[in-house]
Amino acid sequence: MKGAFVDSALVAGVDIGGTAMKIGLVSQSGEVRSFRSVPTPHESGDAVLERIVETVEDLCGKQGLAARDLAAAGVGAPSLVDRERGMARNPPNLPAIDGYPLRDRLADRLGVPVHMDNDASAFAQAEACFGYGRGCRNIVCLTLGTGVGGGAIVDGHVLRGLDNAGTEFGHMVINFEGPACGCGARGCVEAYASKKAIIRRAREFAKRGLAPVLARLMEAGEDLSPELVHRAALEGDAGAARVLFDTGRYLGECIGSLVCALSPEVIVLGGGIAAAETYLRPGIEEAVQLRIFPVHRQHLAIRFTELGPQAGMLGAVAVALFGTGLYEWEAGRASHPNVIG
Amino acid sequence: MKGAFVDSALVAGVDIGGTAMKIGLVSQSGEVRSFRSVPTPHESGDAVLERIVETVEDLCGKQGLAARDLAAAGVGAPSLVDRERGMARNPPNLPAIDGYPLRDRLADRLGVPVHMDNDASAFAQAEACFGYGRGCRNIVCLTLGTGVGGGAIVDGHVLRGLDNAGTEFGHMVINFEGPACGCGARGCVEAYASKKAIIRRAREFAKRGLAPVLARLMEAGEDLSPELVHRAALEGDAGAARVLFDTGRYLGECIGSLVCALSPEVIVLGGGIAAAETYLRPGIEEAVQLRIFPVHRQHLAIRFTELGPQAGMLGAVAVALFGTGLYEWEAGRASHPNVIG
Repeated sequence: MKGAFVDSALVAGVDIGGTAMKIGLVSQSGEVRSFRSVPTPHESGDAVLERIVETVEDLCGKQGLAARDLAAAGVGAPSLVDRERGMARNPPNLPAIDGYPLRDRLADRLGVPVHMDNDASAFAQAEACFGYGRGCRNIVCLTLGTGVGGGAIVDGHVLRGLDNAGTEFGHMVINFEGPACGCGARGCVEAYASKKAIIRRAREFAKRGLAPVLARLMEAGEDLSPELVHRAALEGDAGAARVLFDTGRYLGECIGSLVCALSPEVIVLGGGIAAAETYLRPGIEEAVQLRIFPVHRQHLAIRFTELGPQAGMLGAVAVALFGTGLYEWEAGRASHPNVIG
Repeated sequence: MKGAFVDSALVAGVDIGGTAMKIGLVSQSGEVRSFRSVPTPHESGDAVLERIVETVEDLCGKQGLAARDLAAAGVGAPSLVDRERGMARNPPNLPAIDGYPLRDRLADRLGVPVHMDNDASAFAQAEACFGYGRGCRNIVCLTLGTGVGGGAIVDGHVLRGLDNAGTEFGHMVINFEGPACGCGARGCVEAYASKKAIIRRAREFAKRGLAPVLARLMEAGEDLSPELVHRAALEGDAGAARVLFDTGRYLGECIGSLVCALSPEVIVLGGGIAAAETYLRPGIEEAVQLRIFPVHRQHLAIRFTELGPQAGMLGAVAVALFGTGLYEWEAGRASHPNVIG
C-alpha cells in the first residue's frame, strides 16, 4: 500500500446484491471496522443511492467520522459495469440500477472518490488485496454460483480487455461437442458447472438409484440444489460425491486452459458451491495436473477463498484501492505452498 | 512512439530460427532499411553471437553507422525465453543456444540495450507496433506452424504471466474428450490444428477417396503437408478444402475462449498455415460467432498477418521497442473495420 496521506483513512465497500447490500468500513490493511447488511431497494436507482448514503454515513458516524473523511469508496455490482460512465449494465436481478449513474452520484454525496466494478472482478481484487492473492502478480479467480464468473490480475493489473468485457471465463469452451449453454454455444465450462448443470446431473444420478441419500432428501421435500448435493455427499452419498467430483474435473479443464493462457501464481475459487472444496478439489487437481506444464506446476496454488461472507464487501473495498492507486503490489509477500504436483 | 532522443535512430531485429537468422535494421515507425538472411550456426552459442554481431555491424556500416548508433536491438528466439537472464530455454531446433547468455553478450558487443523474447510473443508485439494491432490495447495472436503458438497484448501490456509462461494458447482445451496432444493432455487446440493434425485428417480423407486431387499429388510423390493440402484445395479439391475449413472451426473454438477471457480488439493469425486464409476463415468465423457476446462482436476483427516474410525480424524489433519503453500505445489509431457479425 502507498499513499501515506490516507494510510490511516478508512475505505467504504458497497457490495450490491439483488436481495441485500453488504456495506462496510475497512482499513487499508483489510481490518473490517464495521459491517452491515441492508435490504436492497428495488423501486429506483435513487432509492438504492439513498440507502447506500444513509448506511455509509451512519457507519461513519459510529466511528466518529464524516463520510468525507473516508479515503475512497468502492462499489461491486452484480452485472457488467460500464466503467467509463460508472454504471451497471443490464443487472439481471436489479433492473432499478440499469444505466443509473451510481458511481458519480455516490461520489457527489459522499465527497470522496468512488470506483465501481463487477462483482467477479471485485472478488479477484479482494483476493489480491486481502486474500490468497496477496503478493501475487498473477491471480485468476472463479466464482461458482448460478453461473461461473471470473476475474483476474495479470502482471499486476486488473484484467479487463476492451469494453471491460474480458474475464468471461465461464464461457470458455471445454468441449465443443458438449451440452448447450445458456449463451448459445456448446460446452462452455458453465454448461457443466453452473447451478443448473449440477442439479441436472444430480437429478439423473438420483433417478438411476446412484444417489440414495440425495433421493431420500428430495423425497422428504428438500429442494434439489448444489448445497443439497453437498449435504448428501457429507452424509455419505457416493453418487452425490461423484457429481461434485465431476464438477471439479470440468472446472479443472477450464482452469488448465487459464493456466496455459495466463500462467497465474494462484487460482482462487469462491461462490456458494466452493464450500464443497473437499469434493471439488480432487477432480480439479486431476484435470489441471494433466493440462499444465512443469513451468506452471512449479508455482501454482489452487485455493478456495477464506474471505467468508464479507468477501463481496471486501471486493468493493479492493475496487476502491485498485481504482485510486492505493493498492500496490508488494514483491515477495506470497507465501502459500504449492498444492499442485 | 516516444523517446525523442532516439526517434531517428534505427533498431536492429534478430529473428533466430533453426535454419536461418533474419536480421534487419528498422526505423521506429517500421520502415525496413536493410534485411539479410544468414545461415544459423549450430556449433555453439558463441558462433551464433559472432554471426549476429558481424551481420549487424555490416548492415550498420552500409548505412554509415556503427552498431552503437542503434537505439536498441531485439532478439526473437524459437523457444521459451528466460527473460530475467536473457537466454533461450530448451530451443528444440537449436540446442547450441540453450542457456547461453545471448542477450547480455550481444548488448556488450553492440554497446546498446538488447531485449529478448520468444518468437510468438514477438509476433504479437510486431502486430502491435507495425501490423493490424496498431492502436489497439488488446491484441491476441496465434502462430500456426508445427504447433500453435500464442502471444498477446492485454490492456497495453505484453501478456507474460509468472515465469513468462503464459500465452500457451495452443494448449487450451477445446474438447476434453478429444485426441491426445503431444503435451500429454487431450483435446488441446494444437491436437486439432497442428501440422501433424492437419496431415492426419488429410491422409484419412485421401484414403477414403474424399480428397482426389490431394491423393493424386501424393501419388506423384509430393510430401503430405498443410501446404500441399492448401494447394489441393486451390486446385478444386473439396476434401482438402474441408480439412482446412475444419481446422478453422477448431481454431475458432479456441479463439472464442480467448475472446471471452481477454476481450481483444483484434485477433491476428500468422505462421505458414495462415496462408490458407480463404479456407480457414469461414470455419473460424462460424465457431467464433457462436461463442462470443454482442459486446465482443461489436469491435472484434479477425485478421491474417500481412507483415510477410520479415514478420519475425519485425517482431524482434518490436521486442526492443516494448523492452526499452520506446513503444507507447497511441489511442485511436486502430481503424480496422469489424469483420465479425
